[in-house]
Amino acid sequence: MVLLNSQHLTSQLIYGRHPVLEALKAEKVFEKILLQQGAFSDEISAIKTLARQSNVPVQFVPPQKLRTITAKNHQGVVGFLSLIQYYSVEDVMLKAYDEGRIPLFLLLDNITDVRNFGAIARTAEVTGVDALIVPQKGGALINEDAIKTSAGALNLIHVCKAQTLAHAVDYLKLNGIRIFAADEKAKKKVFEMDFSIPAAIIIGAEGEGISKELLQKSDESFSIPMLGKISSFNVSVTSGIVLYEVTRQRMKQ
Amino acid sequence: MVLLNSQHLTSQLIYGRHPVLEALKAEKVFEKILLQQGAFSDEISAIKTLARQSNVPVQFVPPQKLRTITAKNHQGVVGFLSLIQYYSVEDVMLKAYDEGRIPLFLLLDNITDVRNFGAIARTAEVTGVDALIVPQKGGALINEDAIKTSAGALNLIHVCKAQTLAHAVDYLKLNGIRIFAADEKAKKKVFEMDFSIPAAIIIGAEGEGISKELLQKSDESFSIPMLGKISSFNVSVTSGIVLYEVTRQRMKQ
Repeated sequence: MVLLNSQHLTSQLIYGRHPVLEALKAEKVFEKILLQQGAFSDEISAIKTLARQSNVPVQFVPPQKLRTITAKNHQGVVGFLSLIQYYSVEDVMLKAYDEGRIPLFLLLDNITDVRNFGAIARTAEVTGVDALIVPQKGGALINEDAIKTSAGALNLIHVCKAQTLAHAVDYLKLNGIRIFAADEKAKKKVFEMDFSIPAAIIIGAEGEGISKELLQKSDESFSIPMLGKISSFNVSVTSGIVLYEVTRQRMKQ
Repeated sequence: MVLLNSQHLTSQLIYGRHPVLEALKAEKVFEKILLQQGAFSDEISAIKTLARQSNVPVQFVPPQKLRTITAKNHQGVVGFLSLIQYYSVEDVMLKAYDEGRIPLFLLLDNITDVRNFGAIARTAEVTGVDALIVPQKGGALINEDAIKTSAGALNLIHVCKAQTLAHAVDYLKLNGIRIFAADEKAKKKVFEMDFSIPAAIIIGAEGEGISKELLQKSDESFSIPMLGKISSFNVSVTSGIVLYEVTRQRMKQ
């Protein structure tokens, strides 16, 4: 188990200008690429260009940061390969329709905590969600901890990376999918929603909630009844309750 | 925050024969008492007797174990005071009826993981559960981690310690409270239960589930629909879904 994890860790990293550039050319999927501040060369320029074209986030970091990641000769370039495969929203949607299912998407806004992300992925897999949609930037890193917390679900459930969640919402709406936002200030309760139709549900981070832009783009907002003095559920419990409510409604049809 | 936590840690421990004996006589509530293997004196005999009378678990441990807990002169006796107050099932039940509520209890069987316990306590508080019922032995230790994971809910929700959960179930049934068991093998689904009546719900540990004895004593068993390839929810998500279903049914009346 320990060996497996360290193999994962090793295989996740690619360092050095040439290896990272070749991996980008071979269309390997990166979570992100770190470049040393001030580093400059034709290869580094090519890495920046290809990363931009493939929507891979690039961060400029001081040399100390790179040294904490690898002691090897990184030449100012360290890339993190994705541990999972990503899918397009379109492919997932068509597959659901093909297989006679009503599509169900879960959009995760500002969920940066790796363990919360893993826990939500597990619940989403168990409840038959077609795909998680996460933003290109600002989501949780899908690392070994996320996969472990998900009980392996991240190897099973489809994950889609959208340029932004606002883009994804626009695309889903154009395709006739209704957008529901979990918002603890909403007057309507989750059981008053109609989840029997193609649906995408947005869940926000604890405390902050969903961004204003996404709330405005949503077709409907709902809250979960709360009867205690503490004002919120853990975000993975919120996801579980909402996804159970979808399942309950769809089973009753 | 750090200071507060270390104060908690300090105030939680009582060591030395005389201080522990006096605390027992003053009816302070202990989570457990550790005695050094082979230690013997009149005071230690008195501690054993009083602990048994107050249903405080006593463990006999080697001297090294006690040294890892405190460097002070413990004289072979270390007691952990409860960080929370415990309530009797009877008092909680009568209070619920007095205040015009339909009682709702959550019994935790074999939930030993401190963070899972804390997460369940948080969800139970938010959904208005009257009390958690835990067994005298074999439950999660209610320590700072549990309270932190509960987001403080353990300072608000009532917790009852039963001699055994089987005893608690017998008592609840005698008082007209229906016993529901969450069992992933059950054919009936959670939304087929009638939670509009006084109810106690048993949740078991992931994997193991609920003990046979408790399953047999239950009036009904239910499962939560699962549509994925992974066969189980996290236990705190299970609790969230079940407690939401109770709330939903009771709000619809």
